[in-house]
Amino acid sequence: MKTVHAYAVKESKGTFEEFEYELDDIGSDEVDIDVESCGICHSDISMVDNDWEMSEYPLVPGHEVIGKVSSIGDHVSHLSVGDRVGLGWHAGYCMACDQCMSGDHNLCNDAQATIGGRHGGFADTVRAQSASVVKIPDPLNAKEAGPLLCGGVTVFNPFMQLGLSPTSSVGVIGIGGLGHLALKFANAWGCEVTAFTSESKQEEALEMGAHHTINSRDVDAIKNTDLRFDLVISTINVPLDWNAVLGTLKTHGRLHMVGALTEPMEIGLLPHMLFNQLSLGASPVGPPAVIRTMLDFAARHQIAPVTEHYPMSKVNDAFDRLRSGDARYRIILDRD
Amino acid sequence: MKTVHAYAVKESKGTFEEFEYELDDIGSDEVDIDVESCGICHSDISMVDNDWEMSEYPLVPGHEVIGKVSSIGDHVSHLSVGDRVGLGWHAGYCMACDQCMSGDHNLCNDAQATIGGRHGGFADTVRAQSASVVKIPDPLNAKEAGPLLCGGVTVFNPFMQLGLSPTSSVGVIGIGGLGHLALKFANAWGCEVTAFTSESKQEEALEMGAHHTINSRDVDAIKNTDLRFDLVISTINVPLDWNAVLGTLKTHGRLHMVGALTEPMEIGLLPHMLFNQLSLGASPVGPPAVIRTMLDFAARHQIAPVTEHYPMSKVNDAFDRLRSGDARYRIILDRD
Repeated sequence: MKTVHAYAVKESKGTFEEFEYELDDIGSDEVDIDVESCGICHSDISMVDNDWEMSEYPLVPGHEVIGKVSSIGDHVSHLSVGDRVGLGWHAGYCMACDQCMSGDHNLCNDAQATIGGRHGGFADTVRAQSASVVKIPDPLNAKEAGPLLCGGVTVFNPFMQLGLSPTSSVGVIGIGGLGHLALKFANAWGCEVTAFTSESKQEEALEMGAHHTINSRDVDAIKNTDLRFDLVISTINVPLDWNAVLGTLKTHGRLHMVGALTEPMEIGLLPHMLFNQLSLGASPVGPPAVIRTMLDFAARHQIAPVTEHYPMSKVNDAFDRLRSGDARYRIILDRD
Repeated sequence: MKTVHAYAVKESKGTFEEFEYELDDIGSDEVDIDVESCGICHSDISMVDNDWEMSEYPLVPGHEVIGKVSSIGDHVSHLSVGDRVGLGWHAGYCMACDQCMSGDHNLCNDAQATIGGRHGGFADTVRAQSASVVKIPDPLNAKEAGPLLCGGVTVFNPFMQLGLSPTSSVGVIGIGGLGHLALKFANAWGCEVTAFTSESKQEEALEMGAHHTINSRDVDAIKNTDLRFDLVISTINVPLDWNAVLGTLKTHGRLHMVGALTEPMEIGLLPHMLFNQLSLGASPVGPPAVIRTMLDFAARHQIAPVTEHYPMSKVNDAFDRLRSGDARYRIILDRD
């Protein structure tokens, strides 16, 4: 038995309070992480607010965890006590289905969310199945690495899944926690990069790796741009004129959605989709092998999120800041 | 100068009348085809009816042409007078753009439709750019080959474009002119094949290569099926509950549209698209290299459309029959 000291909300849209819970003896394939820091993702807000009607309270959010392994189960062979590790959206997989057997653990029907049916990283300790826990490469600045575990892999994974070529022209819609990392990754990947963003962020987008910007609030700017893309990644979860976006794609171009858009998309086949052989796709976070590859890539290219830091005890202030929409670009809670 | 004897409609939704027009001297890269037969495609009706607001009258339809080369231009090296050839939806390409240079001639912005801005195959002669004219392999029954040139390549092309594996489970929505060929191709490709079709065609679908059928008129049958697909090709141009179809896809599954659906599709990202990493795509006919490959594949596997034949002089009767929806499954006009 181990007592975990955490921060939880007790009801939908509640404020955080100190919360303790007990962990049973560690399972043979489990790992306990002594949390050092934890990023805050927009999906933590969605879970606190029960936007997806799957939240259980008390709820301990936090799924961009960095820490050190404090205990391991008997059958864990790839991690040792003291290793610096990260944990993202998933804290366990069935390890037996076709998806898990194919390296698509993030598509496992029985994958367990780190903050659904278990407690997350706003705490001194978080427990997870070892398969979901990845070592943080030494050259990576661990203090800033948390947001890579969810936001980072969510935008990096499509590059791997789609076999993105460095000769490609990539657009990124929405320059926030995910989108700003997408700019950095796409630039390091060798691509020509365009940020679709509000005017207020255009200069920073250029500094973060974009070669061009388009004002995403102006649908005519999208319709009239001369820029053409092989891939547009959308990180937003609000409606946009998707057919206008499809009109910016080259032949064989792809619009890839990583934001959890709840409204249906109205997609016209004519003229763009059909005559330019376009496709629309989507993907959720990424599997462990891609997380590892992403961390190595980030280390080699010195890619880190742009962050604001709060002590974990000030989690309510941090949430207010994130809800304001003014955070630039990802908030990390540091253990007090 | 050469006089062509054709059948044309003079106005939208008109009936066919005999029509003569003159061809200038043949261009250096052109081919004249002495027409033997010509399939009728649903898009011939769309053009006759000016559904796409691009028709010019008098209009000579016909873009599933089989015939013999009667004249060639000076620079034509891959065809000779007397060769048996076919001509499909496109009768010319710019041959210089990135798409043409990449083998994607069907995506060329300046591709010329066989029945748009020029006259088609309901005639004794049709002229086309040599690049769009393909030899019919000797083992293929030329009398039945016309529908392969448009309908056939439209459903075969996605198999090539998507790198379809013979281990795949393929669904085909709409068992008509295109769909029945899709069943035959998918079966010969080595796939597990399911026809989404009305009850009246289910038995024939099984005879044509389907291993399973789903009643496409019953959305609950789609929602409740235990079958799961890697690829579903939709050949229909009427609305369906596309999210129900997306729910039948395996992880990484694709819904690929080849029918010219004019109504927007309402696509939900949640839950299927995002969590199963699905994609929605579309493509128009196919490029010459794929048409050649498709013809070789059809010859090797003895794939031919199921057809009804009319003499070309009875084109009005043939159109009435096609409009009735009762044709099984493709109509071919034979030169009188």
